[in-house]
Amino acid sequence: MLTGQGCPATMLSIKDALEALEGKWKLLILFSPSSRPKRFRQVAKDVEGITDKILSKELKALEANQLVKREVFSTFPPTVEYSITPHGRSLEKVLAELHYWGLAHRKTIIGK
Amino acid sequence: MLTGQGCPATMLSIKDALEALEGKWKLLILFSPSSRPKRFRQVAKDVEGITDKILSKELKALEANQLVKREVFSTFPPTVEYSITPHGRSLEKVLAELHYWGLAHRKTIIGK
Repeated sequence: MLTGQGCPATMLSIKDALEALEGKWKLLILFSPSSRPKRFRQVAKDVEGITDKILSKELKALEANQLVKREVFSTFPPTVEYSITPHGRSLEKVLAELHYWGLAHRKTIIGK
Repeated sequence: MLTGQGCPATMLSIKDALEALEGKWKLLILFSPSSRPKRFRQVAKDVEGITDKILSKELKALEANQLVKREVFSTFPPTVEYSITPHGRSLEKVLAELHYWGLAHRKTIIGK
């Protein structure tokens, strides 16, 4: 892929992916409700360094792209839970490759 | 990875990767000099929709992370060429997975 000229179709699909996952937060947020549905406050606690305002914005974007599902339960007061969708889980391989590359990057560049 | 609780070490490496690749441009820019070294103007032409100002900023960030190499040749006037580094090429698998996911995402979500 990086050995020849990037073809327009490949660039389009990568652009699609990058637009859905834009920024440094979305993939990290996805980890939080991956084990079980979580409430906003729990997600905020799991994702170190994120502000409530940004988390709220990012969760909305993830919901729009059907990566997380937001459910409101009619308890008193109402409870809201976020869970990961099958489409969100399909990012597994992307995350695995980012993980391996991030390890190598830390060793090569950050660790220097 | 998305089936259990994300462990802190995995989140750190993914955070490292996302910080190095932040935004929607960097990976797309990397395609351009992957076949052969290119001048700024050629890269700008390859990456559809990017402004010169952003391209210049992104190339500097890619250079700082040793993903591209900038070389100045003492021609008259001086020529500047950007090439991809081995560390940049090591993103191959990340790009491949993003490509596959982007295709599925377009089919599932954008195409709806």
